[in-house]
Amino acid sequence: MSASSTLSTLLDDLRAQQPLVQCLTNSVVTNVTANALLATGAAPAMVDLPEEAEAFAGVADAVLVNLGTPHREQREAMVEAAAAARAAGTPWVLDPVAIGTLAVRTALAHTLLEHRPSVVRGNASEVLALARGGSGGRGVDATLGADEVVGVAAELAARLGCVVAVSGETDVVTDGRRTGRVAGGSALLTRVTGGGCALGAVVAALCAVAEPYDAAVAAHELWARASERAAATAAGPGSFTVAFLDELAAA
Amino acid sequence: MSASSTLSTLLDDLRAQQPLVQCLTNSVVTNVTANALLATGAAPAMVDLPEEAEAFAGVADAVLVNLGTPHREQREAMVEAAAAARAAGTPWVLDPVAIGTLAVRTALAHTLLEHRPSVVRGNASEVLALARGGSGGRGVDATLGADEVVGVAAELAARLGCVVAVSGETDVVTDGRRTGRVAGGSALLTRVTGGGCALGAVVAALCAVAEPYDAAVAAHELWARASERAAATAAGPGSFTVAFLDELAAA
Amino acid sequence: MSASSTLSTLLDDLRAQQPLVQCLTNSVVTNVTANALLATGAAPAMVDLPEEAEAFAGVADAVLVNLGTPHREQREAMVEAAAAARAAGTPWVLDPVAIGTLAVRTALAHTLLEHRPSVVRGNASEVLALARGGSGGRGVDATLGADEVVGVAAELAARLGCVVAVSGETDVVTDGRRTGRVAGGSALLTRVTGGGCALGAVVAALCAVAEPYDAAVAAHELWARASERAAATAAGPGSFTVAFLDELAAA
Repeated sequence: MSASSTLSTLLDDLRAQQPLVQCLTNSVVTNVTANALLATGAAPAMVDLPEEAEAFAGVADAVLVNLGTPHREQREAMVEAAAAARAAGTPWVLDPVAIGTLAVRTALAHTLLEHRPSVVRGNASEVLALARGGSGGRGVDATLGADEVVGVAAELAARLGCVVAVSGETDVVTDGRRTGRVAGGSALLTRVTGGGCALGAVVAALCAVAEPYDAAVAAHELWARASERAAATAAGPGSFTVAFLDELAAA
Repeated sequence: MSASSTLSTLLDDLRAQQPLVQCLTNSVVTNVTANALLATGAAPAMVDLPEEAEAFAGVADAVLVNLGTPHREQREAMVEAAAAARAAGTPWVLDPVAIGTLAVRTALAHTLLEHRPSVVRGNASEVLALARGGSGGRGVDATLGADEVVGVAAELAARLGCVVAVSGETDVVTDGRRTGRVAGGSALLTRVTGGGCALGAVVAALCAVAEPYDAAVAAHELWARASERAAATAAGPGSFTVAFLDELAAA
Repeated sequence: MSASSTLSTLLDDLRAQQPLVQCLTNSVVTNVTANALLATGAAPAMVDLPEEAEAFAGVADAVLVNLGTPHREQREAMVEAAAAARAAGTPWVLDPVAIGTLAVRTALAHTLLEHRPSVVRGNASEVLALARGGSGGRGVDATLGADEVVGVAAELAARLGCVVAVSGETDVVTDGRRTGRVAGGSALLTRVTGGGCALGAVVAALCAVAEPYDAAVAAHELWARASERAAATAAGPGSFTVAFLDELAAA
């Protein structure tokens, strides 16, 4: 089956099941993440309080943990949710935003890895920092291409028993044995905030209806195609964000 | 007077007075809530810190307390603000997002009820959970229709001495004696985040210029009409949100 | 050189250098602030955790501290970041949202002043409250014109050794010796949330490539011109926000 027909099948499944996706994510992108999940066909629930996060991860169909602005209370909730997801066999996605340069979230990411995410999604710098414990770029932007860290990503995936997805000009998805590549996508995605963060949430949503590797490839494929279509009509980054949500819903 | 002419009159009053609406709301919808208030003609103020929240509730014209992401510090501020609003005779609206399934906010909602909200606004599951202390759906989405809880809503309204507004395909507003229904509205409102939450804020704004029952009916009427007009030109959920704000401002 | 050619030159410099702008800002406007920085050509990083904020302010090219919703943990981070920016010689901008009426942020603003911001940006009420320690309007909206506080702003600038920028129908920028005025700009900017807050972030970004006075004048000039162009095509506040981001990117 081609990548596109797999994507189409998985979107049908997603829309039939409307999986409940719990998001513990950063304050910059909560709105666009919820809207991207709704547009794709999932049901977002931004439950990130201690106690509630733990209970909810037991009933959610998938969980996203994004480290963009991990304040103390949210950090507690993230560890609870990851542990509960792991215990319940619920797929969960770790998006280790800006780890490497920033100490609090770097330590948190390593704690969270103990609860075995289904997918790690990030840019090359973040994946490198996660694998090596080394420094990764200057915050949220990637200074390395995804292709430069394929080997590291595959090793990390094999070691953790998870899928690692690396965003870049060409995205790379690997489970340590297989490596998929998704080319294309509009550069406008990098000129608006939240594109990558919302992608992590949609990877989680698709994990509710497919194996993590297929889910991650399909989500990146969706992102590439929807962003290209949105860019074709957009006059700039403002209208691109609007069109991108429309295209997710139309995909 | 017809519902529409009442709405039109109340919007004129709102725009003349520009009431100051204090919002203690969830992190997903703060932006769209502030923009919906501005578009409708009110002045939003997202004051949700302990100490400040109490002082501000004494000068605000109306207060919204929305339980979508009630972190510890915000919970303190919510109890302060509700108590101060009650003491000052300032109308306040409770939006008990996702209570029933989630323990922290369910307990908080019951504490807040002691300070007697002017209006409770939610979906059928949330209203049922508030009335019965029972379980309510799977988070933020409604699994019951508003019409299925009319009796419960009317009882709750009579017991609390407040107005209860239930969103659904047909919205129901009741003060325990009268029951109003608002039909129509675009289904796209349920495909974007924040529609219901921002509605709660506009109910609060209209409470500054009308009795709570009339305010709640008018706000739901505004939502139905503006969403229909926005849907007529929208290509999907992204462009719908943009058009909806434009239509609120044009109403 | 005319104001417009200075703006054009500074935008070229900004886009060549893509300065890293650390934002500690309020929960209502994080998304639009990050998008406005990206559209203008800067790299936003919303690093506002204690410990991380201090470390990051040492590597950022500019820092914004906006007091819109200063929760406890963010207040700690703000003081850390301001001190670290000052120590590193990194320009930083203080946006004292709604001080005067609200006690917690008013005290915080005075603490932050000890770390000498490069620019203070606010409306007339806020600048007056900062200068006088007096009461300033009813929250976030200005009840005074910028021109009514020119003298106070110039005194404050001279006393602090910083630039003070006051938003109003005509914006005023002063360093205590020079006073610049920027006229025009669309009134729609006051009908959406975040316009002023994002402006503060772009002032910070431009401080990475120019002296604070020139940076502040250029940012206000950019805001006036982009808002006018956006308003020319907007049907209301929703489409205005979208068009405004497009116009920032096209400027």
